[in-house]
Amino acid sequence: MRMAELSRASGVPVATIKFYLREGLLPRGEVTTSPNQARYSEAHLRRLALVRSMVEVGGVSIAVVRRVLESLDDPADPLHHTMGLTLEATEQPAAEDDAATHDAARLAAERRIDEIIAAHGWRLSPDTPPRRVAIEVLAAMTRLAGDRFDGVAAVYADAADLVAGPDLDTVSSVADPETRVETALIGTVLGERLLGAMRRMAHENGSAHRFPS
Amino acid sequence: MRMAELSRASGVPVATIKFYLREGLLPRGEVTTSPNQARYSEAHLRRLALVRSMVEVGGVSIAVVRRVLESLDDPADPLHHTMGLTLEATEQPAAEDDAATHDAARLAAERRIDEIIAAHGWRLSPDTPPRRVAIEVLAAMTRLAGDRFDGVAAVYADAADLVAGPDLDTVSSVADPETRVETALIGTVLGERLLGAMRRMAHENGSAHRFPS
Repeated sequence: MRMAELSRASGVPVATIKFYLREGLLPRGEVTTSPNQARYSEAHLRRLALVRSMVEVGGVSIAVVRRVLESLDDPADPLHHTMGLTLEATEQPAAEDDAATHDAARLAAERRIDEIIAAHGWRLSPDTPPRRVAIEVLAAMTRLAGDRFDGVAAVYADAADLVAGPDLDTVSSVADPETRVETALIGTVLGERLLGAMRRMAHENGSAHRFPS
Repeated sequence: MRMAELSRASGVPVATIKFYLREGLLPRGEVTTSPNQARYSEAHLRRLALVRSMVEVGGVSIAVVRRVLESLDDPADPLHHTMGLTLEATEQPAAEDDAATHDAARLAAERRIDEIIAAHGWRLSPDTPPRRVAIEVLAAMTRLAGDRFDGVAAVYADAADLVAGPDLDTVSSVADPETRVETALIGTVLGERLLGAMRRMAHENGSAHRFPS
């Protein structure tokens, strides 16, 4: 199909498609007679849907989407590398890990997160990004509110174990390796937003009972 | 204390403090003899810590932090309004809710989310933002991966109910109304990031067992 048809089929404006092409998020179409006549395939349509969801619904930056797609498209890149990159690249950066932030709250948070990891029997690679994020976030909470959130942190880990099984079942159920990585990416990025929205609904429901206006 | 002391005590650079003052995120100090001699209090230090955590760790925009703080500082604003605003303002915007996105995936996602809300007995205000976000996100997942994520959405709701109780207990345990709203803000914004980081650790742990490299 031509660019105009790709735009109609995907619902993505031509200007946005051109932007994604320039940014290398979408492979060029097959050139026939002139560059303006490039032809796009079903694979383009599918990739376009993935890119748009990551950027617009998932809030992932262009640079991160590009890195993950490059790894996904590289036949020399082993699947587990793409998988790891997917998880790492879409991780929001934690606050700067400089010496100034190594205060008592940071040390207490690190101890607490490592206790929780041990209690849940999680086997993690050393210096895994989500552990660092968890420590920085809990440290910020501790600086603002003392140890008030220490108890909920353990419950969050229980909730994480509850959802991780079904999340991984969904990924495991996909046979095709490329589709499997795509599914992991969708589940990680969009699943995080879905879980957040569910939590806010549960809060609203609970608040209505506890703090009637 | 003077600005330089406020900077040392908070660990926030003077330039950043000046930026927050200009943006109205931090009230001006008490002016003594000259504007350069403005004095800052413990209340400034506390507010500065809150603003910095929201912006740097929570990833909340300057505009949203300003709206929430204005409501927090307005004695005419009832507490439950600030609370609602806090939840609403820090909600990441969902994709545009235009007619073009009302496709079969969108309709299926709306039906599915409403089933889940009913099954959990959640009482929500009509058109509550997190319901809209949940529908848009699940619709995007459905467009990309079919109904593969329908099952996990229900498990996310179970996880949300699991954490909402302890989250609200933490807020309820605070007597002072201003501190209570602050605690709700911290728990909502930073808690969402902490829960996300926990989920990624649980994924890594589960992946290591299922997809050994």
